Amino acid sequence: MDLSQKMVDLGRKSSKIREIFEYSKRRKAEIGAENVFDFSIGNPSVPAPKAVEETMRRLLAEQDPVLLHGYTAAAGDPEVRRKLAAAINRDYDADARGELMYLTCGAAASLTISLNALVVPGDEVIVFAPFFPEYRVFAEQAGARLVVVPSRPADFQPDYEALERSVTPRTKAVIINSPNNPTGVIIPASGLSRLAALLRAREEEYGKRIYLIADEPYRKLVWTGEEVPYPTRYYDDTLVCYSFSKAASLPGERIGYILVSSAMKNAADVYAAICGAGRALGFVCAPSLLQFTMAECADETADFSIYRKNRDILLRELTRIGYEVIPPDGAFYLFMKALEPDADAFYERARKYELLLVPSDSFGCPGYVRIAYCVTTEQIRRAIPAFEKLYEEYQK
Amino acid sequence: MDLSQKMVDLGRKSSKIREIFEYSKRRKAEIGAENVFDFSIGNPSVPAPKAVEETMRRLLAEQDPVLLHGYTAAAGDPEVRRKLAAAINRDYDADARGELMYLTCGAAASLTISLNALVVPGDEVIVFAPFFPEYRVFAEQAGARLVVVPSRPADFQPDYEALERSVTPRTKAVIINSPNNPTGVIIPASGLSRLAALLRAREEEYGKRIYLIADEPYRKLVWTGEEVPYPTRYYDDTLVCYSFSKAASLPGERIGYILVSSAMKNAADVYAAICGAGRALGFVCAPSLLQFTMAECADETADFSIYRKNRDILLRELTRIGYEVIPPDGAFYLFMKALEPDADAFYERARKYELLLVPSDSFGCPGYVRIAYCVTTEQIRRAIPAFEKLYEEYQK
Repeated sequence: MDLSQKMVDLGRKSSKIREIFEYSKRRKAEIGAENVFDFSIGNPSVPAPKAVEETMRRLLAEQDPVLLHGYTAAAGDPEVRRKLAAAINRDYDADARGELMYLTCGAAASLTISLNALVVPGDEVIVFAPFFPEYRVFAEQAGARLVVVPSRPADFQPDYEALERSVTPRTKAVIINSPNNPTGVIIPASGLSRLAALLRAREEEYGKRIYLIADEPYRKLVWTGEEVPYPTRYYDDTLVCYSFSKAASLPGERIGYILVSSAMKNAADVYAAICGAGRALGFVCAPSLLQFTMAECADETADFSIYRKNRDILLRELTRIGYEVIPPDGAFYLFMKALEPDADAFYERARKYELLLVPSDSFGCPGYVRIAYCVTTEQIRRAIPAFEKLYEEYQK
Repeated sequence: MDLSQKMVDLGRKSSKIREIFEYSKRRKAEIGAENVFDFSIGNPSVPAPKAVEETMRRLLAEQDPVLLHGYTAAAGDPEVRRKLAAAINRDYDADARGELMYLTCGAAASLTISLNALVVPGDEVIVFAPFFPEYRVFAEQAGARLVVVPSRPADFQPDYEALERSVTPRTKAVIINSPNNPTGVIIPASGLSRLAALLRAREEEYGKRIYLIADEPYRKLVWTGEEVPYPTRYYDDTLVCYSFSKAASLPGERIGYILVSSAMKNAADVYAAICGAGRALGFVCAPSLLQFTMAECADETADFSIYRKNRDILLRELTRIGYEVIPPDGAFYLFMKALEPDADAFYERARKYELLLVPSDSFGCPGYVRIAYCVTTEQIRRAIPAFEKLYEEYQK
């Protein structure tokens, strides 16, 4: 074969989200950007915190460029890791250690490196539907089979009974994503406890490790009083995958980390495997300017008040119109039931009203659409009549 | 298995270079940094060009942060790619196209993405010894078998007769690295022509594509009149892997690209596979601030006068003392024959004089050491007596 057909397909069959993104560009050119209500992309729309910008400028002005732009240790500058671990411990009363933190080029890299570190042929990786579609790409590239476990239809929490039936001696890891993309649902402490007890029991039964991979780019985007419990406090065999993309509005800069729980018995081995996987995949180090910047700005978040306002308006108005929605506790997505069983058909109909929503099939949970509300409030307000007309069309 | 032992080993058995780096740190703490002559690491020691720093500061001050730090297209911002392609065409009279350029997190990522895009099980990837040791890690991780072809001992140019015997129907790609790490040797136009003719003949014979992967992070570091011919002008099935790390002294920032030759018949497929591989490995986009910066600074290079001076002093003095060295045309490495057949033993003896040189075994070419001269000229001058004593020890 002249090249990897699998990779050609992955490059060509871009995700549904990207397909909509391309449609959106064309449509905006045709009828004007303000007339297209694009809710398809999770691209933060608020600027990075002022402190982040100022820290970058200050470092550029004051630091020795040879150090500022030089190779750091592959796992990231040790002092940066120490500071980021300290911030975690302060915020969540955890036992994060810099020497068990590996800085990455963002959440996707955190996941691919973790999966490549852990997975051996024959392994299974469990996700809960609805799930971020790239989980499948990442897990399969690492050599695992993706096993999809449903959520409970009532509240979109993981279905623990279904999980119980799905964990097998082949299970290498379970990925959770809280607050969730696409539902915005947060797994509460009680849920994490139940999940931890279940996995611990199976670890003992099978005499092997089952890792919890907590993908948490939305940890700091929370709209209700709901807390996002810190997963290492519930389960020892946890890897926390974090990214500053969403919290600090820096998605293009690619900066995040993997944190191996210090309570994990084989933490040193797992950390070594993460270093090995980062090396083999071609991640030399996370971007150095961003490393040094985030060490100073670990707690800085963008101004989320717009997201919260958008969420509140959408939740109120869509409910008023008659739509069935999952009230999101966090992240900047709202999961809404399609008005017909085929979410793709619903997506097509919505497009007639210039509403670009993401059908949920690729999230492993048919019959819904995802609405990304990290947009201007103006767009939200102008889109409400379109949502109304779409609803009316289905009442005829 | 609890995790991937292969990855644990890769993480633990860090490269010889990193092992020396760790020794160097300890030793410097013991006897003072100025007394350790560390020639082990290819970390640029001159600052990034002023224009690069100024452009970063200007972009931070003037650009909308939502755009500056936002996701770009996965392949990189289209306008950035257009500008970088134009710079290549201006400099090398090539036919680079932005739509066949894929921006990456540096040279390592350029290589892993290219290899994962091309390689299918059973494939072989050819390198010429001495070669950058990570080529083995990257090729094997992509699923290929690494086939090592020697260079000619006289001039360290690829041994084309040996290559002729090593290309098989399983050959997927040949990696070249010019100027070379660790020898500094440049492959001249005549060499590239011969290589291209050989590969074209085998492509026809086997009825399949054989790709040339040109790893070129040192393209702009040239000390003699020697030209570095642009490989797409010689062979259609070429992928150029570039990084700004060395030329612009930005190794920590992770910015580079893959350029697919516009003359490649299946360029669109190969480019799609590169997009797919980038996606599957978890590279969402190259760091956005660096993308926009390098679009403005494509031609900027750090002040290489120190490297050139260091090279000249080392070459003159080591030859004077009696060492046998390969005069480097480019890069910032000098390849020197060890004074005994076992380069590791020679490395140990050199250490007694606080000289840290990298034994060449991991480069696939035993009996030599690599001297990275991207250091201060002061270190070069102070190290000469140590080289003298080391040489004398072998004359007893």
